[in-house]
Amino acid sequence: MQPTAPETEFALIGRLHGRLGAIGQAGIERGIGDDAALWRPSPGFTSVICCDTLIAGRHFPADTRPADIGWKALAVNLSDLAAMGASPVAGLLALSLPALPTSDWIDDFCDGWMALADLHAVALIGGDTTRGPVLALTVTCIGELPHGTALRRDGARVGDGIYVSGTLGDAAAALPNWACRDEAWSAPLIARLTRPQPRLALGKALRGLATSAIDISDGFAADIGHVLAASGVGARIDAGRLPLSADLRAVVDPAQALGYALGGGDDYELCFTVPVASEHALCDIAARTATAITRVGTITSEPGLVLVDAGGHVMQVPTPGWDHFT
Amino acid sequence: MQPTAPETEFALIGRLHGRLGAIGQAGIERGIGDDAALWRPSPGFTSVICCDTLIAGRHFPADTRPADIGWKALAVNLSDLAAMGASPVAGLLALSLPALPTSDWIDDFCDGWMALADLHAVALIGGDTTRGPVLALTVTCIGELPHGTALRRDGARVGDGIYVSGTLGDAAAALPNWACRDEAWSAPLIARLTRPQPRLALGKALRGLATSAIDISDGFAADIGHVLAASGVGARIDAGRLPLSADLRAVVDPAQALGYALGGGDDYELCFTVPVASEHALCDIAARTATAITRVGTITSEPGLVLVDAGGHVMQVPTPGWDHFT
Repeated sequence: MQPTAPETEFALIGRLHGRLGAIGQAGIERGIGDDAALWRPSPGFTSVICCDTLIAGRHFPADTRPADIGWKALAVNLSDLAAMGASPVAGLLALSLPALPTSDWIDDFCDGWMALADLHAVALIGGDTTRGPVLALTVTCIGELPHGTALRRDGARVGDGIYVSGTLGDAAAALPNWACRDEAWSAPLIARLTRPQPRLALGKALRGLATSAIDISDGFAADIGHVLAASGVGARIDAGRLPLSADLRAVVDPAQALGYALGGGDDYELCFTVPVASEHALCDIAARTATAITRVGTITSEPGLVLVDAGGHVMQVPTPGWDHFT
Repeated sequence: MQPTAPETEFALIGRLHGRLGAIGQAGIERGIGDDAALWRPSPGFTSVICCDTLIAGRHFPADTRPADIGWKALAVNLSDLAAMGASPVAGLLALSLPALPTSDWIDDFCDGWMALADLHAVALIGGDTTRGPVLALTVTCIGELPHGTALRRDGARVGDGIYVSGTLGDAAAALPNWACRDEAWSAPLIARLTRPQPRLALGKALRGLATSAIDISDGFAADIGHVLAASGVGARIDAGRLPLSADLRAVVDPAQALGYALGGGDDYELCFTVPVASEHALCDIAARTATAITRVGTITSEPGLVLVDAGGHVMQVPTPGWDHFT
């Protein structure tokens, strides 16, 4: 007989540890099982650390499959490491649950987490398990990169090209179609929402080339806004160049597609800037990392984001991005 | 006029950043304000990392003062670093709130966090702010120690003395007296609950001396149980030697005091083992770190925890420790 629920919190921790802590990673001296984890950083490398919280019903639909929750909780953090150009090393999972989950739930959750963790060799080395009113996950990820090679938000320079990976707006368009998530036409959009692909290979390839980078989690317009503010520059974006998938264009009209691409969020693509003289290197990087890269605009000296249509006319920028409290 | 609430999530983040991110720490190359923080580890040092979640109404009374919440959220993590013998470097704060707090709430929270962070030079370098159904805080702390000097749970050896810092049971006795928290007689116990003192100086001093260490968060009996299991040994504990404060003994009878000391939790003292031949070094450490250290028993070869009274008779071990789901 399959057990339907672990008996205790310690049994739950044991199951998570057994499944998610089993990835070998150079430098991990002690994972789960002590007061803290021990990690020996690579000599000559800077450590990179970030954390993100996902709450059921707020950051993902409450009826999301446990495997997709496991994938996404890790993916959104790996996406932050990608935006710095870091290689991931390990993660910590603070899991808060209304009740002890069934063993099926845990196994499914672990399947999703591991599918991504295995791809990038991310060992689970710590965390916490608590009871709370709603399913909530805070994941901390550690990565590293050679000293002085981090991609930051504050390095964009006037004249740099602005680029994005992949396509924008798909995940945002998935949300209103969540009820149809098992239909064939919605599957590619839903997958963008539930299984975001952190652009780790791209981030790493951009070290020494990109002058700035950010991951697009709150919507392109809001996120590039952080780069512009940090760098003290502006941007001119060609609306017609924003990469939209055929799947997105099939379900919404062009204006809606543009709205999702600019303000939707949950893309987990990278937005980055590269001096025009180095643009040629991006072709090779796109090929090597199997990532579509599209130039969408240019960094300007005038602060603020200017959106122009194909005729060069200035358009209004819709949706100011995601504020968790509004 | 004082504003009563920040306008947006970004304003909230800005206030937290401005107050808590201002501590200078060697090695921090980038704190809050990018996709991830950058930290250059000290050459020859191992990184130590842990995270803990606190939820209002579960890990602290819902009407706890914001300053005490700020202190405690950091303290419980620093206590884990202390138990490894690590020196703290930085923290990340994932804060989930039902609504945007008032500026008074934020200022008070920051006061409490900073009072402790300043003592130990812990810079806030990252985090996340989200809306959730209840106030919940997940703090991640990073520290470091010279390679090979970590205090672990699995090194206790037969014959080692077992020691604890400070006194046990005070915080657990504070909880049933929470309604009287403003009365003079309860103040010392309440302070143990709301302002735990992470034993960082002691943990650091025990490097190269203690064969094992753990912090007492779930109750002495449960926590030493983790050491015994990890080390494959047992323990004989003299009940009469467990250090009980005069404040505790003043409010409960001896049997209750012993119950709180063994099973109460929230002590954030260190329990550690030292070979008897090295015991003499502890006097100096106690003096240097201004920490009371009490020998409470001996590591034995027979697995399990045996509790004996002053006459050497075996007693039953009460309360099996804290399971968040029962």
